[in-house]
Amino acid sequence: MIPKNKKILNDPVYGFITIPDGIMYEIIHHPCFQRLRRIRQLGMTSLVYPGATHTRFLHTMGTFHLTMNAINTLKEKGIEISEKEVEAVLFAILLHDIGHGPFSHALENTIVTNIEHESLSVAFMKYFNKRYNGRLSMAIEIFNNTYEKHFLHSIISSQLDTDRLDYLKRDSFFTGVSEGVVSTDRIIKMFNVRNDELVVDIKGIYSVEKFLIARRLMYWQVYLHKTVVASEMMLRKIIARARQLTMSGETLWAPPALQYFLSRNAFEINDTLLDNFSVLDDDDVVASVKVWQHHHDLVISKLSTMYTNRQLFKIELQNKPFTPTEIATIKDKTAHYFNISLQETEYFVVSDILTNNAYRPDSGKISILFKDERVEDLENASDMFDHGALQQTVKKYFLCYPKELV
Amino acid sequence: MIPKNKKILNDPVYGFITIPDGIMYEIIHHPCFQRLRRIRQLGMTSLVYPGATHTRFLHTMGTFHLTMNAINTLKEKGIEISEKEVEAVLFAILLHDIGHGPFSHALENTIVTNIEHESLSVAFMKYFNKRYNGRLSMAIEIFNNTYEKHFLHSIISSQLDTDRLDYLKRDSFFTGVSEGVVSTDRIIKMFNVRNDELVVDIKGIYSVEKFLIARRLMYWQVYLHKTVVASEMMLRKIIARARQLTMSGETLWAPPALQYFLSRNAFEINDTLLDNFSVLDDDDVVASVKVWQHHHDLVISKLSTMYTNRQLFKIELQNKPFTPTEIATIKDKTAHYFNISLQETEYFVVSDILTNNAYRPDSGKISILFKDERVEDLENASDMFDHGALQQTVKKYFLCYPKELV
Amino acid sequence: MIPKNKKILNDPVYGFITIPDGIMYEIIHHPCFQRLRRIRQLGMTSLVYPGATHTRFLHTMGTFHLTMNAINTLKEKGIEISEKEVEAVLFAILLHDIGHGPFSHALENTIVTNIEHESLSVAFMKYFNKRYNGRLSMAIEIFNNTYEKHFLHSIISSQLDTDRLDYLKRDSFFTGVSEGVVSTDRIIKMFNVRNDELVVDIKGIYSVEKFLIARRLMYWQVYLHKTVVASEMMLRKIIARARQLTMSGETLWAPPALQYFLSRNAFEINDTLLDNFSVLDDDDVVASVKVWQHHHDLVISKLSTMYTNRQLFKIELQNKPFTPTEIATIKDKTAHYFNISLQETEYFVVSDILTNNAYRPDSGKISILFKDERVEDLENASDMFDHGALQQTVKKYFLCYPKELV
Amino acid sequence: MIPKNKKILNDPVYGFITIPDGIMYEIIHHPCFQRLRRIRQLGMTSLVYPGATHTRFLHTMGTFHLTMNAINTLKEKGIEISEKEVEAVLFAILLHDIGHGPFSHALENTIVTNIEHESLSVAFMKYFNKRYNGRLSMAIEIFNNTYEKHFLHSIISSQLDTDRLDYLKRDSFFTGVSEGVVSTDRIIKMFNVRNDELVVDIKGIYSVEKFLIARRLMYWQVYLHKTVVASEMMLRKIIARARQLTMSGETLWAPPALQYFLSRNAFEINDTLLDNFSVLDDDDVVASVKVWQHHHDLVISKLSTMYTNRQLFKIELQNKPFTPTEIATIKDKTAHYFNISLQETEYFVVSDILTNNAYRPDSGKISILFKDERVEDLENASDMFDHGALQQTVKKYFLCYPKELV
Repeated sequence: MIPKNKKILNDPVYGFITIPDGIMYEIIHHPCFQRLRRIRQLGMTSLVYPGATHTRFLHTMGTFHLTMNAINTLKEKGIEISEKEVEAVLFAILLHDIGHGPFSHALENTIVTNIEHESLSVAFMKYFNKRYNGRLSMAIEIFNNTYEKHFLHSIISSQLDTDRLDYLKRDSFFTGVSEGVVSTDRIIKMFNVRNDELVVDIKGIYSVEKFLIARRLMYWQVYLHKTVVASEMMLRKIIARARQLTMSGETLWAPPALQYFLSRNAFEINDTLLDNFSVLDDDDVVASVKVWQHHHDLVISKLSTMYTNRQLFKIELQNKPFTPTEIATIKDKTAHYFNISLQETEYFVVSDILTNNAYRPDSGKISILFKDERVEDLENASDMFDHGALQQTVKKYFLCYPKELV
Repeated sequence: MIPKNKKILNDPVYGFITIPDGIMYEIIHHPCFQRLRRIRQLGMTSLVYPGATHTRFLHTMGTFHLTMNAINTLKEKGIEISEKEVEAVLFAILLHDIGHGPFSHALENTIVTNIEHESLSVAFMKYFNKRYNGRLSMAIEIFNNTYEKHFLHSIISSQLDTDRLDYLKRDSFFTGVSEGVVSTDRIIKMFNVRNDELVVDIKGIYSVEKFLIARRLMYWQVYLHKTVVASEMMLRKIIARARQLTMSGETLWAPPALQYFLSRNAFEINDTLLDNFSVLDDDDVVASVKVWQHHHDLVISKLSTMYTNRQLFKIELQNKPFTPTEIATIKDKTAHYFNISLQETEYFVVSDILTNNAYRPDSGKISILFKDERVEDLENASDMFDHGALQQTVKKYFLCYPKELV
Repeated sequence: MIPKNKKILNDPVYGFITIPDGIMYEIIHHPCFQRLRRIRQLGMTSLVYPGATHTRFLHTMGTFHLTMNAINTLKEKGIEISEKEVEAVLFAILLHDIGHGPFSHALENTIVTNIEHESLSVAFMKYFNKRYNGRLSMAIEIFNNTYEKHFLHSIISSQLDTDRLDYLKRDSFFTGVSEGVVSTDRIIKMFNVRNDELVVDIKGIYSVEKFLIARRLMYWQVYLHKTVVASEMMLRKIIARARQLTMSGETLWAPPALQYFLSRNAFEINDTLLDNFSVLDDDDVVASVKVWQHHHDLVISKLSTMYTNRQLFKIELQNKPFTPTEIATIKDKTAHYFNISLQETEYFVVSDILTNNAYRPDSGKISILFKDERVEDLENASDMFDHGALQQTVKKYFLCYPKELV
Repeated sequence: MIPKNKKILNDPVYGFITIPDGIMYEIIHHPCFQRLRRIRQLGMTSLVYPGATHTRFLHTMGTFHLTMNAINTLKEKGIEISEKEVEAVLFAILLHDIGHGPFSHALENTIVTNIEHESLSVAFMKYFNKRYNGRLSMAIEIFNNTYEKHFLHSIISSQLDTDRLDYLKRDSFFTGVSEGVVSTDRIIKMFNVRNDELVVDIKGIYSVEKFLIARRLMYWQVYLHKTVVASEMMLRKIIARARQLTMSGETLWAPPALQYFLSRNAFEINDTLLDNFSVLDDDDVVASVKVWQHHHDLVISKLSTMYTNRQLFKIELQNKPFTPTEIATIKDKTAHYFNISLQETEYFVVSDILTNNAYRPDSGKISILFKDERVEDLENASDMFDHGALQQTVKKYFLCYPKELV
């Protein structure tokens, strides 16, 4: 049974989101969860789309809402889901992003260098599981896809999960990029289950295709927008330099929790880590970077000033890698221009690869349920698109460097 | 110069549309134009999407609005368009659909059997041109693409014209099918001209791709929706039978203008035709069909009753043609069931082909303007899609027959 | 229990409306119900707001949808409503507007001179009740407010019913007049029941106040828009003249059902009336008026031409009645200008009163439920408005006459 | 002349906002302006409406956009505005909110105790005026309403200015509270000028009335929402305690700029103040409060913990002041519960007054322009509302105290 409602949350995207009573209510009000209110869903994307200041808290509540709807739809279609399973799926979606740190993906592997956010999410789930005497055991199984009903995992993590359905719609709303508008309601109403597999009724096939296209377009318009990438690279380099300085004995102004992360570069999950992680959010980074503008180290002060005042790196994109010579040339220029060592130019010149796959059948496929009970891969079911094109990995190479060098 | 505004029209899609003063104002208030208020943009689509009762009048005013915006954008970018040319383009778009009759495309070639709506549009343009002493000559040239600046024609008629931009957005709004939502504003802001060709600035490439996909999805979700097709076939058969009866001497209740069209089956454009056409709209057809429910001819009374009460044909779709045997079998059944002659089953059993091309480069391409002034085909400019897939013609074969036979 | 769903209807306002199976499905597909697809919700308002071509069918389905939501909300709050009662309320709302004829309110008391649409709705309910062996008896009681649980009547007919909630939101959507946007969802979520009275939880008080204001503004912006009123007066006069001519022996082209109504001027509810009423819709009127443009009677031909080509009456509004002298003067002018008798000027010159009350506590009040279980009138509960102002009847007097006389 | 456009900004509310080239572009990219990206428009409202994380930067750009539209409308209606005046109005609106500090209104008079944000805005205008050699002199005159054409001031600051038009619409969008939806476009299209006064064409009167109501409703639903008020009181008390501790010699962790403000309690406008103010934003406050959770002072650690984890004060509202006895009682309880001195309870118990006036004719009225060129006060022009009710000041008294005491 869907848990009894306790509160109503106002959401500009769905109108109302009901928050259930009991343990879920408690978890939502735990400091480590409330912290998500201070973490922007899209990192520094608001530098390009200034409306995109929405938080991971709101996204999480949105996925929670869609997951409830998905479960209701499946139950109405006669799919058996026990009350305990309903609760477990909801716990799992509620905590699926709790492992995100400041600026979400943008600083992933930068602050907590060697741990993915999913592992931290599981760590927090285990913390709550202990606190609530094993009540979240099934949720963890579902999250890890070790639970016997695999379709429950697919609802919250698959090519067409409530996570993606929410973020496309929500990011579209807050950025104002209409390309991402997705018929969330329609797709969820078409959810079904056959042979323990989450499938989509054939009537929803066009909406699913639209969803795949929308996702691809949002990647290039928003998630991999070149200015966003340039600002991410800059902030990552700032953190890297701050860590290097801290570890070499320099004092950098920063809140204690951020100090903790800057003073080491390899982590394992334990209580100290979780305690520090629990209080860390965007504000700590932003407030610190502003102060670092005045640090005596030229590298960090220069980068911090550029970042704070939105004098972002110039970024070039192309279809083939930049050559070592091209990169060396720009580094030389940089060293000369800023009067820094060639080694220090690592913090000002970045080259890497961007990649996007809208629908990768190898990492899980989307299955369509026909009226005659046949289940087929979207790829075969569709007469609309050459899905080969959508699977194809598009790679772009970028080179970032200070605007002054242009 | 954009004409001075006279009136403001309330449009739920764009908010306000300004109607210019002078001859344009007069044309809009001419009976043959006001008649478009009584012609549904999407024929009988409201049988499936009940919100889709919007009219060709509103679509026309919408295209007019977008065309004004497009011209303003181009002028701001320094493209030279004289005042006379502005007026001509606006006349052309204002009258581009004036040749549509009852239920727009759905009854095209059915009421006026042998004349396309574009030819009728030109006939009306000539009528107004005469009335206003040649003032519309350039508009007719632009419409026919015989005017020297071809980009002016492209604004109102091409793969990416203001006609399509309006109808996708508007049909999406009124049907509630979000798949068609298109960034009209964004695309128009990216319009540009190079070498007398309408091009799109590279910054708009994703929006253009979204537009092509949206158009394709709208085809299958709305324009070629099977129930819509089934109802179109039914109404076409009703008109065909009514004509056959009328021409064989039967009296059918109908307004005089409709009588005129039912009593002959080949037309040429002359004043009598235009006079009768000018007063004909959806209402005449609907009111007549209701009366025909009680006609003594079994074929027309049966079809008219089915249509009026929305007991539509069953329709089957498949990827290969229905065989003559399949069709013969269903006709036999129909003859037997309704106790009619095999010949009369032509009015109850229809098989044909549906087809859709989202982007046919042979019929005009979309050109992208790069920052270095290169102009390339969308197909080559894009790294997103395999445009081969979008060009590919998708064909579906259908077979319609009375539900009673299932 | 809410009936099992059968079909999904696409609605641009709410997204999806589910249509239940069984008798309700049958009623919705009955010819007299399908006829609502051909009756515009807002009469001739589309002459002013061209997007407002939405139908009474869609409004009815919208009220049905909101009523389902309201019932679900109340049941979630523990209000007891039996399965039989749920069905009865849904029948009642489904048929509440079935008695509307062509152009809805605009021609009420004009085509069926002496019978209100509510009486016709009840007549149709009785028809279905007979057909389904008394299954609608409770629905009729609820509609007439003779059923013991009065709050069920209030859901579908009161100061704050699902009828008004739908029409404000829907008319706002299709006209594009944002003044009518109402938080339908929020208000319905705040519905509650105390002492057999429908009340609103205090948290919804601002939304209710907004609703009252929105209703008032929509009256003046849309429902009583002067151009709409002018066109209504014109069409009413056309029908009146057509009836007068018909009854005095003239032949007027019209579909048989319309002929039936034109050939008498007093009606009682019986099978013949219902049969003829069941097939009458907007199309019959529009198609006929177009033909009447060529009638030899100058009054009807002139009015019909003016109406068809949207050469509407000029209308003046003022706060006090027009004097007999003013009216006589304009009639004299009219007689002279059109060369008609003074008596015939009745068809060209109309003066009457417009009136609007947003919230009339005498005709049923809105009650607010406080957290301490107190129930108070909105008027006393609110600290926002002087509700006296909202109750106050605003009257405007109008005078319509042909534009040619200006 | 409207300045040439340089860049396009994506805004989810208006779609696109064009940023002009030249000095305006430079000002927008100045650190003190970019800082507005890190200041939430609605303070801590996102604690109640989690979507409301939008920034004062985006609001400012929105007002800029509307002001351009307003100027265009007036020029189209033949009102003379010179190019220099256009530039001046745009400078003035661009900088009208530059004086806002962290959390906008919520901490006004708390961080900079004795200076209003308008005075700081003027100070920044003067800074830029000096930098650009007097180019902003006229802007300052317009802002201060000392310029001869007073209607220019009214566009950006009056009962119906572009500031209010933007914030109602924008706050409505981000909170999801549809009550604030305002026909911005329509109202601005109705702007006009008579006798150096900004007036509204009579056709816009209903939209203006809707605007007044919307504003009132937004006050109670959002701006003065009790939970928002409770959280504001809490943060103000935190800052007050932090200042008291700092001034009495305690060390509090805080960025240098915040330290500057905490270490004194009276300010005058000078370069040092502006320098420190220029780098201060929401992040500094949030990051500091999180650290203060662990301060040894019980008052600040307790309040900081409550605030960070969203354990907000309970707040009671009533129509008359809370009595000294009531307040004393709750303070006693507080002292006892937290084991603090009675004096220290000042930081936990707050009682004050909330007030709202939707339309105060004494502080500037709204004038309506009739078709016969008469100009009248809205109050007299309207037949809709008893404007007395709208002018009336509604006062509510509140009492905040820790939830633990309930």
